[in-house]
Formats: sequence, C-alpha cells, structure tokens
Amino acid sequence: MEKINLNEKLAQINEHWKPHIVGDLNKQQVKLVKFKGPFTWHHHDHEDELFLVVKGRFCMEYREGDPAAPERTIWLEPGELVIVPRGVEHRPVANEEAHVLLFEPATTLNTGNVENELTVHDLARL
Amino acid sequence: MEKINLNEKLAQINEHWKPHIVGDLNKQQVKLVKFKGPFTWHHHDHEDELFLVVKGRFCMEYREGDPAAPERTIWLEPGELVIVPRGVEHRPVANEEAHVLLFEPATTLNTGNVENELTVHDLARL
Repeated sequence: MEKINLNEKLAQINEHWKPHIVGDLNKQQVKLVKFKGPFTWHHHDHEDELFLVVKGRFCMEYREGDPAAPERTIWLEPGELVIVPRGVEHRPVANEEAHVLLFEPATTLNTGNVENELTVHDLARL
Repeated sequence: MEKINLNEKLAQINEHWKPHIVGDLNKQQVKLVKFKGPFTWHHHDHEDELFLVVKGRFCMEYREGDPAAPERTIWLEPGELVIVPRGVEHRPVANEEAHVLLFEPATTLNTGNVENELTVHDLARL
C-alpha cells in the first residue's frame, strides 16, 4: 500500500493517447493519459468511463441516442470530471496537451468498438 | 451527461465525515467528503477504497496483516491518492480540514465493519 502522486506519474508519460495504469481496485483501473489533438469517435458497449482533468483542458464531443443525433460538447477544466455512460459515442479533443485521469473497468479498450492506430491492447504500468 | 466540478460540489458540503455521492458508474460511486479530526478504525470486507486529496492534507493510518501489526501512516497531499485494499484496517486523520474524493463500490459503508455515530447509511447526492 503506497501513495500515488499524479504529477510524478504523469511526468513519466511521453506519448499522447496512451493510457498508463497506476492503480487497480474492484476490477476497475485508475489510468493516466496525456491528450493532444482529436481522438477517435467510439463507444464502449459494456463500460462507463470517467474522465477527470488534472492539468490543461479538453472538449468531450459526444452524441446521445442514435448515431445521427446532434453532436454535443462539454469543456472540462482541472478539477472537473465527466462520466460517459456505456453506449454513448464520444471522442475527446484537446487543442493543447491535457493531463487526464481515467477511472474505468479493467476490461476497457481505449478505442472501444473501433480498432485503429490509436488502439492500445497492452497498457504499460507506472 | 454533464460535467461535475469538484470544488462547486464540495462547497455544498457543510458536515465532516459525511460522504456525498456525485457520480455513478459500473456499480461504483464517486463521493466527496470533508475530513476533520480522526475517523474510526475500520475495514471493508469486500471493497477496495480509493482516496484522492482535492484540497488540504490528511494522514492515512493503517495496519497490514493481523490487528496487532504495527501501525503505519501515509501522508497525502493534493493530487495524491491511495488505494486501501479490502481487509486492511485503516482510519484517516486530518489535523486541518481536508477535501477528499472517494472512489469505491456503491455497496461501501463509510465505517466498514464498525457501526457508530459516524456511520452514514443513506448518503446524500449532490
């Protein structure tokens, strides 16, 4: 049992969009990730996903309901979080680099139902 | 789907040691609580518990192994978290008021295996 300093862990991350695991509990994981630019539109069939901004800011774009639903956006600043429910299409977009804590089931794949060059199957641990 | 500003939610809490629910996901809950003074020694049989400091600082006292094991302490500052595994006896102690985010299963009782004047069965939502 030891404490985790978020900024010390984040300082070890030098790639964008690659989540790193920093903690495990109740079959969930705490991950840290640096966002920059637009991510991929995707959803998770079985997992709700929490995003908490540690540093910087980003915009969560999402569509509630069917895929043709109008796109909505939520701006998130440090100390703000959003929970994206399973099934909701979303993509984070960061104009500048943002440092983000994720809390989600250990089964969660970063690109959800999509497989592309941003997909990370084996997450590193810090 | 809406964002949650931790400081805005914390500003609505005016009692110590009463967790307030601010989010639900994957049968887990995000709670906010203000610590001040010593809490009750307890453990959770079935739940791991995450504590993340938002403001202030506190000390997590704990005993690993049997109840007669030596007491250990971890000091936590803003941006630092600790995960207390199920079964580990622990109590947070805050000399000054500390603002803390909890992440734990929805089934978690704040005083774990102990029932006393600090126990809260029906948590408020913010």
